[in-house]
Order: sequence, then structure tokens, then C-alpha cells
Amino acid sequence: MNFQSDNAAGVRLDILAAVTAAVGPSAHAYDGDAWTARLDDAYSDLFGYRCTVLPVSTGTAANALALAAMVPPYGAVVCHAEAHINVDECGAPEFFSGGAKLVLCAGEAGKLTPATVAAATAGFRGDIHQVQPRALSLTQATECGTVYAPAEVAALAGLARDRGWRVHMDGARFANAVAALGCHPGDVTWRAGVDVLSLGVIKNGGMSAEAMVIFAPDLVEQVRFRRKRAGQLPSKGRFAAAQLLAYIDGGRWLATAAVANAGAQRLAKAAGSRVVWPVEANEVFVRLDAAEAARLRGAGFLFYDWGLPAEGIVRLVVAWDTPPGDIDALAAALG
Amino acid sequence: MNFQSDNAAGVRLDILAAVTAAVGPSAHAYDGDAWTARLDDAYSDLFGYRCTVLPVSTGTAANALALAAMVPPYGAVVCHAEAHINVDECGAPEFFSGGAKLVLCAGEAGKLTPATVAAATAGFRGDIHQVQPRALSLTQATECGTVYAPAEVAALAGLARDRGWRVHMDGARFANAVAALGCHPGDVTWRAGVDVLSLGVIKNGGMSAEAMVIFAPDLVEQVRFRRKRAGQLPSKGRFAAAQLLAYIDGGRWLATAAVANAGAQRLAKAAGSRVVWPVEANEVFVRLDAAEAARLRGAGFLFYDWGLPAEGIVRLVVAWDTPPGDIDALAAALG
Amino acid sequence: MNFQSDNAAGVRLDILAAVTAAVGPSAHAYDGDAWTARLDDAYSDLFGYRCTVLPVSTGTAANALALAAMVPPYGAVVCHAEAHINVDECGAPEFFSGGAKLVLCAGEAGKLTPATVAAATAGFRGDIHQVQPRALSLTQATECGTVYAPAEVAALAGLARDRGWRVHMDGARFANAVAALGCHPGDVTWRAGVDVLSLGVIKNGGMSAEAMVIFAPDLVEQVRFRRKRAGQLPSKGRFAAAQLLAYIDGGRWLATAAVANAGAQRLAKAAGSRVVWPVEANEVFVRLDAAEAARLRGAGFLFYDWGLPAEGIVRLVVAWDTPPGDIDALAAALG
Amino acid sequence: MNFQSDNAAGVRLDILAAVTAAVGPSAHAYDGDAWTARLDDAYSDLFGYRCTVLPVSTGTAANALALAAMVPPYGAVVCHAEAHINVDECGAPEFFSGGAKLVLCAGEAGKLTPATVAAATAGFRGDIHQVQPRALSLTQATECGTVYAPAEVAALAGLARDRGWRVHMDGARFANAVAALGCHPGDVTWRAGVDVLSLGVIKNGGMSAEAMVIFAPDLVEQVRFRRKRAGQLPSKGRFAAAQLLAYIDGGRWLATAAVANAGAQRLAKAAGSRVVWPVEANEVFVRLDAAEAARLRGAGFLFYDWGLPAEGIVRLVVAWDTPPGDIDALAAALG
Repeated sequence: MNFQSDNAAGVRLDILAAVTAAVGPSAHAYDGDAWTARLDDAYSDLFGYRCTVLPVSTGTAANALALAAMVPPYGAVVCHAEAHINVDECGAPEFFSGGAKLVLCAGEAGKLTPATVAAATAGFRGDIHQVQPRALSLTQATECGTVYAPAEVAALAGLARDRGWRVHMDGARFANAVAALGCHPGDVTWRAGVDVLSLGVIKNGGMSAEAMVIFAPDLVEQVRFRRKRAGQLPSKGRFAAAQLLAYIDGGRWLATAAVANAGAQRLAKAAGSRVVWPVEANEVFVRLDAAEAARLRGAGFLFYDWGLPAEGIVRLVVAWDTPPGDIDALAAALG
Repeated sequence: MNFQSDNAAGVRLDILAAVTAAVGPSAHAYDGDAWTARLDDAYSDLFGYRCTVLPVSTGTAANALALAAMVPPYGAVVCHAEAHINVDECGAPEFFSGGAKLVLCAGEAGKLTPATVAAATAGFRGDIHQVQPRALSLTQATECGTVYAPAEVAALAGLARDRGWRVHMDGARFANAVAALGCHPGDVTWRAGVDVLSLGVIKNGGMSAEAMVIFAPDLVEQVRFRRKRAGQLPSKGRFAAAQLLAYIDGGRWLATAAVANAGAQRLAKAAGSRVVWPVEANEVFVRLDAAEAARLRGAGFLFYDWGLPAEGIVRLVVAWDTPPGDIDALAAALG
Repeated sequence: MNFQSDNAAGVRLDILAAVTAAVGPSAHAYDGDAWTARLDDAYSDLFGYRCTVLPVSTGTAANALALAAMVPPYGAVVCHAEAHINVDECGAPEFFSGGAKLVLCAGEAGKLTPATVAAATAGFRGDIHQVQPRALSLTQATECGTVYAPAEVAALAGLARDRGWRVHMDGARFANAVAALGCHPGDVTWRAGVDVLSLGVIKNGGMSAEAMVIFAPDLVEQVRFRRKRAGQLPSKGRFAAAQLLAYIDGGRWLATAAVANAGAQRLAKAAGSRVVWPVEANEVFVRLDAAEAARLRGAGFLFYDWGLPAEGIVRLVVAWDTPPGDIDALAAALG
Repeated sequence: MNFQSDNAAGVRLDILAAVTAAVGPSAHAYDGDAWTARLDDAYSDLFGYRCTVLPVSTGTAANALALAAMVPPYGAVVCHAEAHINVDECGAPEFFSGGAKLVLCAGEAGKLTPATVAAATAGFRGDIHQVQPRALSLTQATECGTVYAPAEVAALAGLARDRGWRVHMDGARFANAVAALGCHPGDVTWRAGVDVLSLGVIKNGGMSAEAMVIFAPDLVEQVRFRRKRAGQLPSKGRFAAAQLLAYIDGGRWLATAAVANAGAQRLAKAAGSRVVWPVEANEVFVRLDAAEAARLRGAGFLFYDWGLPAEGIVRLVVAWDTPPGDIDALAAALG
């Protein structure tokens, strides 16, 4: 019974079907195929705004390409200290950007606020002795399983824009956030001031492609070249594009995310006061002592410690296809 | 009737089946799955030598990661002027390596020789004013559709090793080369002195994964970190691994390559004396005047000019699944 | 009356004389001259250990070149959050290293301890999802004007070596530290486990050259190439080498540093309980309210706020040639 | 008798005097001093155009910083195959630019022409599979001792501008070129379309500073940050600025260059038909067989082979202070 990561989940059958439908010979290689040609329209419809969509093979690539297009090598990206780009991407943003720095902010429950962003950047004087903040990166839903409301995104993006920074959103679990908020996907992206969204597909039922959704037209050319240069232009591009098209077709991306969110709510209820941060998406962080954690693991539940084991927090992730029986069992064991 | 690129080809059904078989939930994300766990053994069996296999999403990534692990930023990679790494990867080797240089060699029919390599590097003095050649990169089959015999690879790799260089092989069409040579795949790789092979899978019936086959154990750790850092560690790694396992299963990788090679021979025969370079794999380069090229295109044949149109050379690529009728038609039109 | 920075100080006359003596034509350009040829011997005598000395034009270059030779691009450098390499070098370590990360430690009075280093790196798991700490960088004297005793350096370097990290020392004010400690310069460098020292010359009476003192022979070749590649190999190298030779001749580097240190002690005494950190080198940090700071500035004293003005701390730097009368005047004004 | 390099020359006494006059304490560190403050005005007067001047410690740094500001990492710099940036800077342009490529042109006597530039770039299609030429770099005087006339610079820069490229001039021996042409320095720089000039100072009597002369205002901010980040902002900036001010004072930069040029003419006359390329600055390339070369070296003349010894070409460089007697002696020996 696996609650380690939604990366361990399965693939939606409609996405598999879309891939299967693309196996025949295509008229054009790289990004010259008919599937790729439909991406921009399909996603522009979804977001209610003209955007450019570029498939990449990982969320790390999506994040790092976006940031590299936003900041010069002597620039800096402001983000939460717990952000995936800081903690779990082996320095990809630094690599893709030519050595830009991450400026780390504290923040309750994985969330930035205008106050913590202002505090973390107060020491930057703007002179040539220091790197220059030029982008803000938010994670939606956050690494702590919380969600930014549209007004929160707008406030942060507004602060960024007032200072001339670009705004990036790491949306590895964007679907879970939108499903939880019940808002239009545009409300927490372009309408709130986001320039580029790294849209997670794989965790929520995809197979091997994630989407860069670029709302800022001036960044597109740079990303196109950097993407090829990074080895992220697939030679049979139709398989990535087909996944991205199927992903959002008929609103299923939100339906599957809602299922995962509901499972997390169930676990949260069972964990009661041991829940560490508000459960707003598909992750539940629970304070467990070592004996409890060992007992659960002994009972066949797989999950990771969050931070150092001594901190006594574990992360429980519900995927779109986590068997209801597994959730029932874990809820019972937690209760 | 598409003779533009084998990147436009379809996917082998056994590879699709392997992908399909992996869509259920997996116990572990990233590279923790059962498919990935079998890669090293399967490929070590194939090559007759203990190797490490790391899937990547493109051949560009495979090439650039290999070279970055071989040369320091102040190093240089010796390669043919026509090499894909020089002409068609948007500077990926320079990006991944932190700015290493490519030293370009001339060479008939896309092939390097010890003499052209020695000539191209004669001016390097070894002092700190110049970058230092530290790796040789060969393409097998070459960009001109020719193939290095085992003794040719060994001679080039031997020269490289005598100078303390590492040896990389861009094997985007490695299957076609081995099928043409009829040799053991080890004969033109580790046995001849190759450290890392970028093994092409996609052109020859794969979907979305290529393989880095690393024969030099001391390079493995570096490549692992650089691969993650480059956004090339897929979160559901089983889909890439499943393709690579199916690719070589039962020798089908050579069977499909042989079919493509045979198609190219058929076109070569039809083109007769207009063939530019020996046809040894699945590409045929033909001298056509503008009227002939226009006539063929008018008849529905798709193909690219090789170099500038004024040079009057076109490239005809036969894929593993090019319809025999298309080949017949083109042979007839050329005859 | 300037207490802003020892970078604003003058040049020792013996260093000027050495430069003047080198203006005639030299037999060899770059590093082929007689002055450069004597550097290694002269500094090996000083440190009591065979070392390689490479002149560079700034301390930033010395630090960044050293770190780039110590860590791979996917590596990390552990340092104090206030370290010059983090705060005031515009991302030079990230640039030179190809994007390695700085891991920031807290620490009283600008000093790292084994405990703060261990705490800052406890979260690193050693897997490919994260950059890998591979070097420790100490500043001697620290940015807060404190000094590491030999045993403190040895403890930190010992921890680093136990983990397989290299050890760098930013010695922009190394002379002040050694003068304060009264120890042999080897005691806080190679004998304690330091691999490379960035030896500050300019602040302490030099003109335009700093010294990289490399104790670890395996790093030398890499630094030589990286230095040229970074535009740090001067075409008339004798002017840099002449400064470095004169700098340490007859022990004058320690004599001038001792003078600066004594001036700082004088100010510390006058500032009394308002002194923030122990005054151990040539910098004095004083808590001043806005009115006091304004009064002193109105009286003609130049100095910088340390951190944000609201924190109410100012930095007073005494240089080797700060006029005694200026020190008297400031002491009186502070008393 | 040294004809190896003008890097081996001495320092003009007025430049030494200017350095000496700056040794006293300065009010401000880095670039806050009075000397640095005068640079822009002084050079704007000289060039007859508003420019920004930034001192750096080497010509390599000047070249690489300029190019890095002109091209993105996926860009390319078009230059002569013999250009110093390609052959003798250990990959500095690639390092500073984050991996941009050099596109190499052939060209008689070290000179580019619009035709050779067009030929070398004809194969670039402008798509994302290839790096994009974005800058042209000229060397004035060239590595072969020849000089571009104003109309030649204008033709090349015009071609570049038509394609949206920036224009860089490596002026390591710019003074020799202007002295030879007898033109206004603006005629072969901004008036002809040059964006940034790397102005050589050291070879022509300087000590330790070269000048970046930036005519394109939009590049200034980027260069300022990149320069600091590259460790090229000296902490006592007045010593570099003082040299650059003295260098051009009273037109002496042209006077010393003219002396060197005259010496080269003398040698050219003596070498007669063995001269390889037109002698237009201070370098003479002479075809010598091995016996002749050995005889001259035996007679005490120091000089380098140009290219491989087997090619039988030597380079004779006359510096601003090469003793007339040495020139006489070499002329006699050649005659």
C-alpha cells in the first residue's frame, strides 16, 4: 500500500489510448506533427488566454527552462526554502540559468507571503556586487500540501511585478490545487500575473510528458532554443503532445485530481490533531512518533519521512488511482 | 511517401505492448522500479560486457551528458565537422559541458580517420592558452550513411587512448551499423575502446526513450548526477526502461534495422552512379539536379536537401517501417 | 577620515618600488618571467610547505577559481551565510563552478562551528536528487572581524575531510588574522587541513594582485587552465608577481596588519559595550543609534552600515595606513 | 633580442608615473574613485562619441565579457579561424557566454570579408536545431599583422547589422592599426558600426589594465554585472583607471604605436619577398627555412614559429620599446 509519491501512480487509460493511437508513422518528426500543432489551441481554450505549450520530459526540466528564460546568470530566483527547485532538482535551475542563485524564503506551511518575500530580499541593494532578484517562483499546490488562493497568487505576483520580476509557478500538483479551489485555471495563473506554469501531468495520470505553459509571449523564443539545447525536443514529438492533449480533454485532469484530494481528506480526518499543515490538496503531513511510524510500516504502508526522521513528520500522498481499500486501511490504522 | 527521416517512423508493436504492460501502479518512482532494475543485466548480456544503462529522452541528451562527463569545461571534443553534435543539437555539448569546444575534422563520407584526427589536433600545444582535446566522438552509422568497421573504430579509439582521451560513440543509427556489419555489438564498442555509446532506439521503432550505455565505470556516478540535474530522470522511469528492454528483446532491434538497410540498398541500386557516398546503412545520398528533385517531390516523395540546395544532394532515409510500396515507387522514379 | 574599507587604503612603498623595478622590458610574457618563477619558492618558505602560487586580479577571482576546482557543477560549497562569496561576489562561485550551490550556515560572530556545519548539511541525503556538499569555505579573519584559532580551523577542516570535502579559506584579511593569532601561517592553513588559501594582498598594502596559495597539488592543473580561461593570466605577469614577492618580504605583511589591528583595538576600547563582536582583527562593529551615526558622519567620519540601517550596526575598518590622528579622533568621538 | 611578443615589452614612464601618483589613500574603493570617474569623459573625447569604459585585467577578459553580453548561450560568434578568441584564450568566450559557439571563417591574411562571412554562415537555417549567429568579432590589427580600412570594417559591420548581429572588435593592437591608417579612432569603431572595442593597452606600454570601450548603451548594464561576477572589478580600481587615462593622454598611444610600426616596416624591407602577408602594423611574418631560423636564433634573436614549425613561417613582433639596435641587427641578419 503505497503512499510514498504520486509519481508511483499508474497511467490514465485515455492517455494510454492517445499514445497508442499515435504509434503509426507520422508525416513529420520533432515538433512538426499534427498532435503538437493542436497543443497551443487546446491549452489556450483551457486557460482562456493565448499561450504556448511546450512538452518536456520532466518537471525539473520545465522548472529550470522557465527560470533560465526569466533571469540572467547574474540574476536570482526568490522561492520558498522547501521548494522542489531548491531541494530536489540537483541544482537544475543553477545549471540551466548559467549559475543564477536561489534566494530562500521562510514561510508557514510551504507558503510564501509578500512579507516573507520582502524580508528575504531586503538586503539586496541593486548594485553590481550582488546578484539581482529577477523572478519569483511559487509552488501550487505547495510542497506542504497547501494551496494558494487566487488572491494570494495575485498579491505575490503583484509584488514581483512591481519590482520588475517575472513570475513562475511550479505546478507539479496544479490540478490538485485547481480542483481544491474550484476556480478557473486562469484565476491562479495568467490572470493573477503568472508568466510561465510548469504544469504537472505525470503525477496525475500521465506517462512521460509534462507541459510548459507560457503566458508571456516574449519568453517563447528563448525557451524554444533552450529546450532543444537541453535535449528536451523529442524526435517523435507526437507521443508527448498526445499525452498533453488527452490529459485535459473533457476536464478529466480535474476529475482525477479531485479523487486524490478526497482521499487525502479522508486520511486527514483520521489523523486528526496530528495533521501538521492544512490538507488542501492530495498530501497529508502527520506527526508520528517512531513507534507509530514503525507500526504502520510493519502493517505494509509505504511512506516517506518529511525532513529528518528525528523531526517525526511523515508525508502521505494519495494518488489519483490509490485503491480506496488502501486508503480505508490507512485511515483505520491512523484512527 | 516520407523519406525525410526515420524520426518520422512508427513504433514497434512489441515496444507499445511493453509500455502498455507498465501502466499499472508501480511500487517505486523515478528509477526505483522493476523495469529499470533489469536494464543493466539485459544490456550487459547483449554487449557481452558489464555496463550501466541510463535512459534519456533524446539522443541530444545522451550525447551531451556523455561528453560532459568526459571533458572538463576547458576541454575539447574532437569530431567530424558534419557530426550531429556540431550541426544539429543547438550547442547541447557546449551547454552540458560548461563550454567545452568541438574541434572539427574533415573526412570523406562522414568518416574520421586517424590521419584527419591527427591533422585537426596538430596545432594544440597542450599549454594553458588553449583548450585541451580530451574526447573523441564518432558517429556510427555516420551522418553520411557510411559505417565504421571494427578495425576502423579500434584504430580511432586507439589513437584517442594513446593521447589520454575518452571515446564516445553517437549511435543514433547504431542498429543499422551493426546489422550492416554483421558483427557482435561489442566489436564496435567496448572491445574497440568506446567508453560510452549513445544508443538510438527511437528511430528504429522506439517511442520516447534512448539509451546511454556506459562501459567505463568511472563515468557512471557523474552521469547519474548530471542526468538528474539536466531534467532527464523521469518520474515514472518504468516507461523508458520498458521500451529499452523490449527494444533488444529477441534481437528485434537488428531485424528492424536490417529491413531498413535493405530498403536503402534498393534505392541505391536505382540511383546508380548518382549515389554520393557508399550506402552502408539506411540512408542514401543522391545527386539530383533541381528539376529532378522537383519532379520527385511533385510525385509525392518527401525528402530533405543535404546541405545547401545549390549543392544538389538530397538525403533519402528508409525507416524500419517504410512501406515497401513506397520504396518500390521511389526506386522506379529514380531509375 | 575613511573607515569604510581597507580597499580604500594606499599602497606600501616597497610594493610600489617592486613594481617600478619591473617596468623595463622582460624576456618573457605571461608567466614566463623571472618574478613569477620565484613565487612558489618564496611562498613555500613562508608557509613551510610546498605550495603553488598563482596571482589573480581580485579576491573574487581567487575564491571562485579555488571553489570551481574543488566541486563539480552538481556539488555544493558549505559556507557562512554572511560569507563574502555568498553576499558580495555577484554569484562568482556559481559562475566559475558551472552552477554549484552554496549551502549557508548560521554562526555567531561570523564563525562556523562543526555543529552549525553539521546542522546545515544534515538534510543532504547523498542521492542524485540533490547537489552534493564537496567543499567547506572559511573566512579568516571572518566578515565579523573575528578570527579562527588553529584548533578551530583544524576541527572544521577535519569534519570536512571526514566527509570527503575539500577546504578553502578566504583570506582577504589573512594577514590580520595571523598577526592577531601570533601563530605560524601554516598553523591555520595546510597544517590544519586547508587545500587552497585566497591570500589577500591588496587590502593590506598591495596594488592590483592577490594570491592563490594552493597546498593541494592535485588541484593545480585545473586551476591553471581555469585561471587562463577566466581572463586571469596577465600578459605582463611580472607586475603581479613582483607585488606578491614584495608583500611577504621581510615579514612586512604581518607588520602592517598588526598596525591595523592595533588601531581597531583602540576603537574597540572607545566603543566599549557597544561593540557587537569580539574585535580580533582590523574591523570593529559597533551598535549605534541613528542619531549617533549621523553625528559621527557629520563630523567627517566615513563608514558603512552593516546589514540594513534599521539594525543599527556600523562597521569601522582600520587600514594599515589609516592616519593615527584619524583613529584618535574617532576614538574620541566614540568615547 | 626579443621579437617574440609585445607582451614582453616594458611600461611607458608616464603610465608608471600615473600609477605612482595614485598610491596614496583613496576616498573610495572599487570603482568609486576619482580616476575611474574620469574614464568615460576622457575616452568619449578621444572617440568623438559617448562611450562607457570599463577596465579589465586582460584582453581575454575584455573579449569574453563583450561577447557574453552580445550573444545568448544558444548564440554564436562569427570570427576568423585564426582569431585569438578561438585559438589562444582557452575557451574564455565559451565560458563567459555559457557555451555559445564560435563559427570559424577562412580569410586571406587574417582578414574576414563579407564573402567569407556569408559563406561560413550560409548553412545556418535559423531553426531551433542550431545555434544562432548573433555577433561578429573582428581583430584590428589582425593576427596576421594586417589592418582593416574603415570601409572594410563598415562593410563587415553592415553585413552583421543587416542580420541583427552585434559587432565586437578585438583591438589588442588597435593603436597600431589606427597609427597605420592615420584615421580617427572613431572611423574604425562606432562610425563603422562597432558596438564594443576591446582596447589593448598593455602591449603598447601599459602595465596591468586593458579597456573595454562600449559604444552600445544597451550592453553596459550587463557588462557591469558580468565583470564583477567574473572577478574583474578591482578593489583598488584607481590603478587600472590611472593607466587607462595616462595611456591616451596627449596622443602618446598613437606615437608609441607608430614607432613599433616603423620598426616592423624596417624588418619587412629587409625580409623582402619572404614576407608572407602585407606588413601593416607591428608584426612581420616571414617564410624561413629551418636552417635560417636556427641561424637567427643562434645569433640571439628570440621569436616564435607561426603555426606548426613544418609550415616554415615565423612571427617577428616589434614592440614600442624594442631597441633600435636590435631592429638594425635583425634587419641585417635577414637581409
